[in-house]
Amino acid sequence: MARPLTPLLSVDRIAKGALELVDHSGEFTIPALAAKLGVRPSSLYNHVSGRTEIVELMRGLASDHIRLPHHDSDWYATISETCRQYRNSYARHPRLIPLLTAYPVSHPATTRMYNLLADVLTEAGFDPAEVLKAITTLDSFVLGSALDVAAPEVVWTPGDHAEPALAAALATPPQGTQQRADEAFEYGLQIVMNGLAQQLAAIERSR
Amino acid sequence: MARPLTPLLSVDRIAKGALELVDHSGEFTIPALAAKLGVRPSSLYNHVSGRTEIVELMRGLASDHIRLPHHDSDWYATISETCRQYRNSYARHPRLIPLLTAYPVSHPATTRMYNLLADVLTEAGFDPAEVLKAITTLDSFVLGSALDVAAPEVVWTPGDHAEPALAAALATPPQGTQQRADEAFEYGLQIVMNGLAQQLAAIERSR
Repeated sequence: MARPLTPLLSVDRIAKGALELVDHSGEFTIPALAAKLGVRPSSLYNHVSGRTEIVELMRGLASDHIRLPHHDSDWYATISETCRQYRNSYARHPRLIPLLTAYPVSHPATTRMYNLLADVLTEAGFDPAEVLKAITTLDSFVLGSALDVAAPEVVWTPGDHAEPALAAALATPPQGTQQRADEAFEYGLQIVMNGLAQQLAAIERSR
Repeated sequence: MARPLTPLLSVDRIAKGALELVDHSGEFTIPALAAKLGVRPSSLYNHVSGRTEIVELMRGLASDHIRLPHHDSDWYATISETCRQYRNSYARHPRLIPLLTAYPVSHPATTRMYNLLADVLTEAGFDPAEVLKAITTLDSFVLGSALDVAAPEVVWTPGDHAEPALAAALATPPQGTQQRADEAFEYGLQIVMNGLAQQLAAIERSR
């Protein structure tokens, strides 16, 4: 049998094609995706229900590199490592992030991560309403940090507008993009985790 | 004299046109912007030097609603209120955020905010290297929180994949988009600020 000239259309090819468009231009459309894959738009609908499902498939791809830590008794370490994995995985697709936050989260791979966070926070002592707000806090910090990985080598170029305190801060090393972003993330992660630990101590005192 | 059929091209019209494109599709191109404004691409270059300057002008527009608090002696309150203003102003343009984080910050309006943050953190007792990392922590949390304002009414729809702890957290009110996002932001802001206060106490103890 002759080999087909184009690979068969599949859910995976659709997701990867859409992600390439988003990585490049911050958006995808069904017509542009069909053109990229060399098919008619109607063919896509044989595999996916539409835009919402494609966003969710891209969320799955963005979560691909998340290696969840073993859920052990140390809530601080387990959540910190989950956030590191989450940030590093999503940092590969910064332009995708505003699409992900604009659509409901349903992908099983992402839900697995949220299950772990909810389990660990609940066992640590947070009640359900605080679990949700703590997860949202971590989410916001991690997604902002993932965007920061894509920041330019020199983040601030305020010129003459920097006053002494800002100028002194900007003169501190390191300058390289990855090292600066990594050190700032680890610092911020510790700030957020210490804030959560303090909140937990307050909860325990009030019991 | 006859009134011109299209308003004169200006830096402000260019910035606002680009922001409308980004709000709609997550991106702008010089040809698309020129078409939208009814001019030739080359005409744009009579007013702006190119893409980087247009991004910076959009950063200025995104910062438009920031009303910086009076810099008083309470570092915790001053920084908290700055972050609220920053988040609310940027939340109006979620699709712009990955463009802003990918370009160097130079707009005077934004620099004014960073000057305030650097001044207040420095006076509170952080050294210059920590000032920069603390600002990056606040930046990441605020930008992630600004994206969260654009989240759908129901953020998580994990279906059968939610285990008990996550399901219990998702069952807690409030459900409305704005109220949920606002309450989560205020919770997270307190977590981050308490983490910074704890770090400051550690710095003071080590002196």
